[in-house]
Amino acid sequence: MKELLIQLDADRKIPLYEQICRFLKEEIRRGKIPPGEKLPSARALAAQLSVSRSTVDLAYGQLTSEGYLNSVPCRGYFVGDVSELYRLEHLEREPVHKRQADAPAFRYDFALNGIDEESFPINIWRKISREVLLEENSALFQLGDPEGEWSLRTVIAEYLHHARGVNCRPEQIVMGAGNDYLVILLSLLLGRDTRIAMENPTYRSAWNCFRSLGHSVAAVPLDEAGMDVERLEESGASAAYVMPSHQFPMGTVMPIRRRLQLLQWAAGREGRFLIEDDYDSEFRYRGKPIPALQGYDTHDCVIYLGTFSKAIAPGIRVSYMVLPERLLPVYRERASVFSATISRIDQSVLEIFLREGHFERHLNRMRAVYKAKHDLLVKNLRELSGILEVSGEHAGVHLLVHFRNGITEQEAIARAASAGIRVYGLSEYIIGEMPERGRNTVLLGYGPLRMQEIEEACRTLKQAWSALDSEAQRQKGPEPEA
Amino acid sequence: MKELLIQLDADRKIPLYEQICRFLKEEIRRGKIPPGEKLPSARALAAQLSVSRSTVDLAYGQLTSEGYLNSVPCRGYFVGDVSELYRLEHLEREPVHKRQADAPAFRYDFALNGIDEESFPINIWRKISREVLLEENSALFQLGDPEGEWSLRTVIAEYLHHARGVNCRPEQIVMGAGNDYLVILLSLLLGRDTRIAMENPTYRSAWNCFRSLGHSVAAVPLDEAGMDVERLEESGASAAYVMPSHQFPMGTVMPIRRRLQLLQWAAGREGRFLIEDDYDSEFRYRGKPIPALQGYDTHDCVIYLGTFSKAIAPGIRVSYMVLPERLLPVYRERASVFSATISRIDQSVLEIFLREGHFERHLNRMRAVYKAKHDLLVKNLRELSGILEVSGEHAGVHLLVHFRNGITEQEAIARAASAGIRVYGLSEYIIGEMPERGRNTVLLGYGPLRMQEIEEACRTLKQAWSALDSEAQRQKGPEPEA
Repeated sequence: MKELLIQLDADRKIPLYEQICRFLKEEIRRGKIPPGEKLPSARALAAQLSVSRSTVDLAYGQLTSEGYLNSVPCRGYFVGDVSELYRLEHLEREPVHKRQADAPAFRYDFALNGIDEESFPINIWRKISREVLLEENSALFQLGDPEGEWSLRTVIAEYLHHARGVNCRPEQIVMGAGNDYLVILLSLLLGRDTRIAMENPTYRSAWNCFRSLGHSVAAVPLDEAGMDVERLEESGASAAYVMPSHQFPMGTVMPIRRRLQLLQWAAGREGRFLIEDDYDSEFRYRGKPIPALQGYDTHDCVIYLGTFSKAIAPGIRVSYMVLPERLLPVYRERASVFSATISRIDQSVLEIFLREGHFERHLNRMRAVYKAKHDLLVKNLRELSGILEVSGEHAGVHLLVHFRNGITEQEAIARAASAGIRVYGLSEYIIGEMPERGRNTVLLGYGPLRMQEIEEACRTLKQAWSALDSEAQRQKGPEPEA
Repeated sequence: MKELLIQLDADRKIPLYEQICRFLKEEIRRGKIPPGEKLPSARALAAQLSVSRSTVDLAYGQLTSEGYLNSVPCRGYFVGDVSELYRLEHLEREPVHKRQADAPAFRYDFALNGIDEESFPINIWRKISREVLLEENSALFQLGDPEGEWSLRTVIAEYLHHARGVNCRPEQIVMGAGNDYLVILLSLLLGRDTRIAMENPTYRSAWNCFRSLGHSVAAVPLDEAGMDVERLEESGASAAYVMPSHQFPMGTVMPIRRRLQLLQWAAGREGRFLIEDDYDSEFRYRGKPIPALQGYDTHDCVIYLGTFSKAIAPGIRVSYMVLPERLLPVYRERASVFSATISRIDQSVLEIFLREGHFERHLNRMRAVYKAKHDLLVKNLRELSGILEVSGEHAGVHLLVHFRNGITEQEAIARAASAGIRVYGLSEYIIGEMPERGRNTVLLGYGPLRMQEIEEACRTLKQAWSALDSEAQRQKGPEPEA
């Protein structure tokens, strides 16, 4: 073939072999060098271009790997058939760096899923991280157990036993990067055809996840003690997702009698399960935490879900579930192929955090922090006791406000919003039609706000909602004398 | 009612209110205090026990929460009906701390999924972690974007563009805790009814995950260029999972022609997708990395999967996928309800690691480290060229050894094992029946072993396999003269 007119530029940042590659690719693409054509030998081209033989070898090797050239032993390099390249034009799209829209600006946000950022035990976390990130721990960089590290599961089993009355062996624990991931695994264990009952209103995220996974989900009404067991029976569900320690969003604590009824429901037929989501049981401001439902389970039918999202931070993504013994072979068969989702470094930091007692101290501190916020919020809201009442308090990091006198959820939210304050409607958590008694209810989370902010936000809310009250009164006409 | 005979022990570590709780629970459970019975008033019991009124309030409150007592306003506390407790006996199981069995002991393990532990950039990682774990970054502790942090996705989009020829906007990137998690999301996006084609032999883990998720999976044979497109067409699959840069386990680099054929297959019918798993494309010891298939995609049909498991460490659990534009609304509809699976702290560390150029330097170092191991292993194996040949070399962190003269995979593995060395059979990665040409092949991963260990392991292997060769020869009779 004719001599190749390659212009090499030794000063350019692109390596010489790549300049050769690019030139040849372009020539082949444009059909300047037709398929089947033999290229000059590497030695000849190197001499022509005054580059080393290995530079040309590298370029030819690369082009062969990519299919532009075929190498025929003892004969040389030939141009391949890349005719499709003429038709498939390379679409160059420059990445667009569009910043995502931030959340609308509220002065104060009574967010339900946040934590007190300032209380994250950052110094201890940093110190432990530094200790863990040492060369002697290099095994941490290899892939770990799909279920989570054994030593961490051991510490969690001990913690669950003494703090939550959960009876389990480490073998029963499966760690996962967040509650939603565990719901995915559960879906595999129970089978997609399993109809799931959830409390109504409920934790929307789990509801959405089950739905996305293709489950049929039944919304079973709550009464003041928790999920209505008769309606559960009627629902045809074979698994019930409940939050006995502190129902989200209603804040109900399920009494022992209802717990036992649920356990009896589960034991009543083969293949029934209770999924106990114990998401924020650590925070209780009256009496000691109520033992988990799992601890009363004698029929091996409770799946216990726990998380460090509320107790430490949602950002760290560590949850776990405790499987009943009879689900262990099912787990091994259907779900153990999925690799671990939590970094081993993070697991190791958490393990030390638990083992050295930092977690317990952190919980005690957080209980005090949240209790102070809780008390302040409740005290402020009580000043509005003429127009609202509070429920779901004394536990968790949110409470409910029920308006009297016909103020609706929507009005309360809108009035708060126009004063720069975000509160949340109960209706977001209700499946299907809103029952009469829920139409006047909003939720206030006090985890992320500072004391000072709660104080200020309440001052504003009192004005906003009182004004609303007078308006509602005006529209209804004067209140009859008592 | 009669006076309660509670024995309080002020020295015990259990708080007084809890001692009261326990006593009353036990009495109620045993039927000593029957349902409906009124308890002494809090004031009276406090006086009787010489404890403060609030201690008894706390105990009564707790028992009421748990359902042992009912509180009737203005009347007092009454024992609840907990008759089910008689039947459901509390099963106390002490956690058993059984240590899981360790992997069988091999002196040297040519593991396929490991990395060079010593090269993990631990000092930089620790330094960046320390910088990230500062109070001013406390927003990191809140829940982040389900798709991963925007700033990290921006850096990854830039990296993919210049290093892999991938064209994407950060919006198209979804981060997840490992490849398997992304396979779960993909399954949701494509729908469970989608038949998936995979190369045969293939990456077992993805195969198993798709199967566990309920997909029908077709095993499409590989030829020397990659997945056989005719057989793919026949398979009836509408998504094909391929590893063009370095097929696992065969080590094939797919030439441009086959890539274009695959793209044409995908463009040939509505709803077809290519899933490009680019798991270890960073490691190539000849020429520059071959651009990703995604970069040639003009029909918006390539889903690109990438991971930091190979390039940094499997233990850190960070993978990502680049979705075609048309899957973005599908993602939002079906999968955006699942919360993020990677800790924001970890995402932040990784982002700085990428942004400050540490990743590129790390890759360069690792290429040199792995190339040295690769060269050493290849050199050693070449000394056995009478009985075996090597393929799949020059890229990734494993290669294939094909025996001649009738030595089978099983014999090669067994002989290596009895000399304390672990090698892996190709058959583990073959779906269905083993083709004739695969029966004599083993895989050797050289990521985790040290140079010295490779040298020593090869010395042992040479003995073990040469002996095997003479045996195989003996059984076959003398080799005919050439």
